[in-house]
Amino acid sequence: MSEKILLISNSTLYGGGYLDHCKKNIQNILDDRTRVAFVPYARPSGISHDKYTKIAQKAYKDMGYQLFGVHEHKDPSKAIKEADAIFIGGGNTFVLLTMLYKNDLLNTIRSAVQKGTPYIGTSAGSNVAGATIQTTNDMPIMYPPSFNALHLVPFVLNPHYIDPDPTSKHMGETRETRIKEYHVFNDRTVVGLREGCMLEIKGNSVTLKGVTNARVFQKQKEPMEYRPNDRMDDLLSNKS
Amino acid sequence: MSEKILLISNSTLYGGGYLDHCKKNIQNILDDRTRVAFVPYARPSGISHDKYTKIAQKAYKDMGYQLFGVHEHKDPSKAIKEADAIFIGGGNTFVLLTMLYKNDLLNTIRSAVQKGTPYIGTSAGSNVAGATIQTTNDMPIMYPPSFNALHLVPFVLNPHYIDPDPTSKHMGETRETRIKEYHVFNDRTVVGLREGCMLEIKGNSVTLKGVTNARVFQKQKEPMEYRPNDRMDDLLSNKS
Repeated sequence: MSEKILLISNSTLYGGGYLDHCKKNIQNILDDRTRVAFVPYARPSGISHDKYTKIAQKAYKDMGYQLFGVHEHKDPSKAIKEADAIFIGGGNTFVLLTMLYKNDLLNTIRSAVQKGTPYIGTSAGSNVAGATIQTTNDMPIMYPPSFNALHLVPFVLNPHYIDPDPTSKHMGETRETRIKEYHVFNDRTVVGLREGCMLEIKGNSVTLKGVTNARVFQKQKEPMEYRPNDRMDDLLSNKS
Repeated sequence: MSEKILLISNSTLYGGGYLDHCKKNIQNILDDRTRVAFVPYARPSGISHDKYTKIAQKAYKDMGYQLFGVHEHKDPSKAIKEADAIFIGGGNTFVLLTMLYKNDLLNTIRSAVQKGTPYIGTSAGSNVAGATIQTTNDMPIMYPPSFNALHLVPFVLNPHYIDPDPTSKHMGETRETRIKEYHVFNDRTVVGLREGCMLEIKGNSVTLKGVTNARVFQKQKEPMEYRPNDRMDDLLSNKS
């Protein structure tokens, strides 16, 4: 296992700038790989692929990397194969996954990552790295051919995980209730990444990074809390 | 147009009991129709069809109606055709829609409602009454064959609509941002039903009922607020 994967809850932490809170982690996973392929398909707030790419480009330039949008290439698959690393940004998970299918990129990305090309995802980009997108928070504004995703890891993710607010009078389901409903019909472990944390995966090791805890939900078990720098290697053996 | 449709945001309002805040509205739409077919497929918190039916049964008995679960019948389609009214309860919208397809109930319900059988929906049950479920808040824990729903009305709904919290440090998308993203890729009007309100549709008339405002989003227009007892008939002419 030579995979290098960084799954970030959120691209922007309250009070900071775009990717500010995870720049060191990105640099750590990229090392001296310089040419980063960016997948802008998730289009946060509906911004264009070009605009989104410019935002990502600036942040990666500050870190010392050269980033290009895969949409700029006639053959996005070839562009990914030739890149040193892959970054998929946040936005709407359903739009992102639909476009990955439409451009036939799932197998390309999966095999590149298996061969050691580093993968970085934020929010929706972390969601699609899971086995399926079934624990996304997003609205189903586009119909993908399947909810099966990149499956770079055997579990599923819930970015922007948020604890129930005990003072709330809102009667909509809490995040935890929604995840419990997932487990009525599905078996995979759900990793709830609070804003400010991320999973760093290197080969067979998984480490929680960042400044907040993660909450892990396994079917028919009590949820478990993990703290920054905790090892979570067992997540990779969950083949359920 | 002889339709009688009641689309309720939420089954339980903070501080009250199940259906307490909308009993009068239910009685108004049902009139003297006594036998209500209940669709328990959405399974809130994963409870069984039987348990869910018992909860609904008790509330309807208090209002003077006899309610049965369609799952108790070998032929749910026949059960719906023979009922005096239809009630679809809340839970997970994806599970609900998948089961409606699996049991081949969409056309049956649609033509019953067109013939004048009253339809009552709460939360997910209101979502599926729309043209599609693309503005649900729920997690996609089951993959339906399509996002197209009952299409009893030409618009789409967002139950449990909630305003952005200006004090929040959470960076996940607000409900309004999510609905704006919907309109980047889709055209239909979105009716955001805050908890406590509901749409009463009788033939060609649409009236907001309950105690809170609704927020209506049209593509490329400023959102509009409606107050209880406001007429919203134009919603039915939105065939986009």
